[in-house]
Amino acid sequence: MTDANEADRGCLNGIRVLDLTQFEAGPSCTEALAWLGAEVVKVENPKGGDPGRGSFAPKPGEDSAYFLLFNANKKSVTLNLKSERGLEVVKEMARKADVFIENFAPGAIERLGLGYEVLRELNPAIIYAQVKGFGEGSPYQSYLAFDMIAQACGGLMSITGDSDGPPIKPGATIGDTGTGMLMAISILAALYRRKDTGQGERLSVAMQDAMLHYIRVAFSVTARTGDPAPRAGAKVLSGGNAPSGIYPCAPGGPNDYVYVYTSRANPAHWQRLLQVIGREELIGDPRFDDMAGRLEHEVEVDEMISAWTRKHDKHEAMRLLGDAGIPAGAVLDTVELQNDPSFEQRGIMQVMEHPHRGPFKMPAWPVRHNGASPPVAPAPTLGQHNGDVLHDWLGMDAAQVAALRDEGAA
Amino acid sequence: MTDANEADRGCLNGIRVLDLTQFEAGPSCTEALAWLGAEVVKVENPKGGDPGRGSFAPKPGEDSAYFLLFNANKKSVTLNLKSERGLEVVKEMARKADVFIENFAPGAIERLGLGYEVLRELNPAIIYAQVKGFGEGSPYQSYLAFDMIAQACGGLMSITGDSDGPPIKPGATIGDTGTGMLMAISILAALYRRKDTGQGERLSVAMQDAMLHYIRVAFSVTARTGDPAPRAGAKVLSGGNAPSGIYPCAPGGPNDYVYVYTSRANPAHWQRLLQVIGREELIGDPRFDDMAGRLEHEVEVDEMISAWTRKHDKHEAMRLLGDAGIPAGAVLDTVELQNDPSFEQRGIMQVMEHPHRGPFKMPAWPVRHNGASPPVAPAPTLGQHNGDVLHDWLGMDAAQVAALRDEGAA
Repeated sequence: MTDANEADRGCLNGIRVLDLTQFEAGPSCTEALAWLGAEVVKVENPKGGDPGRGSFAPKPGEDSAYFLLFNANKKSVTLNLKSERGLEVVKEMARKADVFIENFAPGAIERLGLGYEVLRELNPAIIYAQVKGFGEGSPYQSYLAFDMIAQACGGLMSITGDSDGPPIKPGATIGDTGTGMLMAISILAALYRRKDTGQGERLSVAMQDAMLHYIRVAFSVTARTGDPAPRAGAKVLSGGNAPSGIYPCAPGGPNDYVYVYTSRANPAHWQRLLQVIGREELIGDPRFDDMAGRLEHEVEVDEMISAWTRKHDKHEAMRLLGDAGIPAGAVLDTVELQNDPSFEQRGIMQVMEHPHRGPFKMPAWPVRHNGASPPVAPAPTLGQHNGDVLHDWLGMDAAQVAALRDEGAA
Repeated sequence: MTDANEADRGCLNGIRVLDLTQFEAGPSCTEALAWLGAEVVKVENPKGGDPGRGSFAPKPGEDSAYFLLFNANKKSVTLNLKSERGLEVVKEMARKADVFIENFAPGAIERLGLGYEVLRELNPAIIYAQVKGFGEGSPYQSYLAFDMIAQACGGLMSITGDSDGPPIKPGATIGDTGTGMLMAISILAALYRRKDTGQGERLSVAMQDAMLHYIRVAFSVTARTGDPAPRAGAKVLSGGNAPSGIYPCAPGGPNDYVYVYTSRANPAHWQRLLQVIGREELIGDPRFDDMAGRLEHEVEVDEMISAWTRKHDKHEAMRLLGDAGIPAGAVLDTVELQNDPSFEQRGIMQVMEHPHRGPFKMPAWPVRHNGASPPVAPAPTLGQHNGDVLHDWLGMDAAQVAALRDEGAA
């Protein structure tokens, strides 16, 4: 980063993160820290770097959209951790870092000689964070994991899909980004305490374990029924809310649907809905007037709503329902979201000016601080900050950095 | 909380959170802060409190499992915010708080007279946090939202389901808890900065906006293809990974499946898989030897894997595949997760001793700090801490607290 005004970088200005993560679970965590002002330095293999750079890259050697999305606002330094000198340099960096984080396969970081005990010895104040697929002490501790494995073993697939169909993989990458966010919270809490104590700590999270945090409503169903939480298609897992569901809209394309919800907690939703769909005559009708009645006649209720939604496009349906105080949401696809001017106007989507790929529009950190999302800066090219970072952190001059490269250490 | 050793409460020891949130998006955020040591005081309406208390409660007046899951480790104070005196007390509490947070319907907190400008005047150091359905400046700004509305309008439903079927609602409550986690990160970053500056700030997040953060892989597909990211059933959204999917296991129950993944980045996965399923003769077969070939013969490939998985139960299949270094995960349901002894042994599931409901086992904060998840303490009964908190924060004595109750303010 070459901000004119380093002091205004954000809440975490001054925090140094030594980032050995790759793909998404780790990088999503460190990107959140970078957006909030931390100096996040990716340490990457000189031969290609984070394998996420190459995932569906437009051409060999160019960085993928996937990489840009998860690595905005970071710096990149190449170091060959299998060379003695490269390993020495990363240890020197660990002395200067506030946070160290990695998400390699189980045991890999320890085999590299960068386990917690080693780094704590070098820097007792370091916050040492690890993201793995399965937890220490789990029977699956040594197993490989990816997003979808965590979503399978963590319960998300069991509760997604039609009630009479097989489990479905949710499209969002909760296994990866969902885990990364929990680690970011623990890192920030540890940094907060460290301001007073000066003491580092060891943090670890397993993707399978993290998934339980996101399916607690399903556990509430099991607590009540004793049975596995069911798949409920478009309906609410806990049941008992009618009407609610995904209703078809004009003109009938793959994402022309609107979600309509009427809360158990607010009987007015149903009466408002009858007015919007032009069925005022049913207000007070005993067949539908309470939740039990609507559940009993759910097929009929869904049909009368669909008859109305089919006459409207999803945007209009959402507007008519929303204006009437009924919770409703159009099913928006990624092109509609990408092109919706509201996100860019509000800074929720921002454009990164990437040195090779040019302008690249992407979701920014969505929490606004004093009215604005933090600015998105480009994802780094491989090794882009070798000179800057090795100078700032370790006082190396250009000749020393060049020597590292020449001997194959960087 | 009546911990013997307050100093050991956790990283956020000493932080006071004035928590006006309800249901899940807000409470999931403040519960994370409570687990990490903050003193989180729920301010609740004396008549029933957080409506989440009553969601599928076992009997009237008893707290629901849903409430227990999202409100562990907090305190509860009742205040009638529609009484002059109740409002006065909550403002006095705001003077003593580090964080204020609410997730009422749009405009409600300002109508109560507790908007940002009011509280900042009382306490310039306060971090004032709001969670809404839609963002300020969005055309939907005034609309109601619930988890499923955010998942519809935030793109998650458009990418979940079979490729030839309608959108499906993901079972995990990413709209709520997913948003709450992002707000927790911003609150902690703001607290970190405040240690140096003494300045508070205003934070706000919209559930729709937060959803974009969790579907960035889908945006990477759109960046590459120009088309809406598709629904891909059990497969990977970005395509191009064969084999991968949810394969059926013995004995054929609704969740008897195993996810098997072979990464594009590691060709060895496929060869290992052929060995496990007893099809070594196909190693090197040109029809299947590279990813392009396997994609072309995907139906055949999926059939040979299913033929093997059907002969094993999901646990055995996962073990045989995992031991061979192939990413694989059994589709576990909430009863299996609830009863798996590994989670309790490792502290990922913990038992809350609830005064009315007795022992209640639930997922704890999954990130381990120095090897252990923070301890789970009971969710508070309604108004349980009126005396303690009003004394600690405002110096009230028992008679003053009783007077508040008698005049209908608490």
